[in-house]
Amino acid sequence: MFMRIDHVAIACHDLEEKIAFFSETFELTVVAREVNEEQGVKEAMLHIGDGEGGGSYIQLLEPLSADSPVGKFLAKRGEGLHHVAFGVSNISEAMAKIESKGVRLLDERPRHGSMGSEIAFLHPKDVSGMLTELVQAAPPSKNGENVHT
Amino acid sequence: MFMRIDHVAIACHDLEEKIAFFSETFELTVVAREVNEEQGVKEAMLHIGDGEGGGSYIQLLEPLSADSPVGKFLAKRGEGLHHVAFGVSNISEAMAKIESKGVRLLDERPRHGSMGSEIAFLHPKDVSGMLTELVQAAPPSKNGENVHT
Repeated sequence: MFMRIDHVAIACHDLEEKIAFFSETFELTVVAREVNEEQGVKEAMLHIGDGEGGGSYIQLLEPLSADSPVGKFLAKRGEGLHHVAFGVSNISEAMAKIESKGVRLLDERPRHGSMGSEIAFLHPKDVSGMLTELVQAAPPSKNGENVHT
Repeated sequence: MFMRIDHVAIACHDLEEKIAFFSETFELTVVAREVNEEQGVKEAMLHIGDGEGGGSYIQLLEPLSADSPVGKFLAKRGEGLHHVAFGVSNISEAMAKIESKGVRLLDERPRHGSMGSEIAFLHPKDVSGMLTELVQAAPPSKNGENVHT
């Protein structure tokens, strides 16, 4: 069901500062920057490698407001690991299978994620305290790049 | 420098219960179980996929005692994400490069990790609150399997 670790997401106060730190310290390349109003974040994806069905990334998240989920996380816990995302080939099928095992879904249907992906979150209390995301990557475009990068 | 997300590690109270949950719910296979006295944990590695230089895994960690690092983490935070590990080709070289950028190392030299790997931890305060591990996977044996799995 899981094909790769798609990304690990880090909540931070200052996106630009952290992009500079991670890209310089670990020699990573920023492949996307987005604002996701629905999730209340601005974010960046730093490419690490490629796996089955898509890439692996560090995702940096800065909240758009203090009362967003990531804003509340920062107020309570400070900067740190926010969630982990796993790549799947068919997100609707994966959601149905996982729900049938008794894990609650935070999303009833897939919604838009980074770089044109479809995503859904699982309830962290049902996954050992880990906020878990499923990702179905966008199909590659004709030149081999993801269409939304 | 980073070739893949080697693993995400989850601290838990009952390793056997969590192995059953993760393998059943997400259709993952346990490829290694170990006791690491030095780190004060018993652990299991569940295989997700393969990347450059090695595999990607979910690592489940149960503390051997309440006063071990993972035991203290559980007492303070409860079950959840403990650290993230990134695969590198040459761990000594990666450690030197990262230290030269001003990030403190928790290990002066590489030590033994899961499945015959060499590992080292970085100070979480220097990496946006994320406990970060470097992993140089064990070389594949003649039959293509890691020698310690």
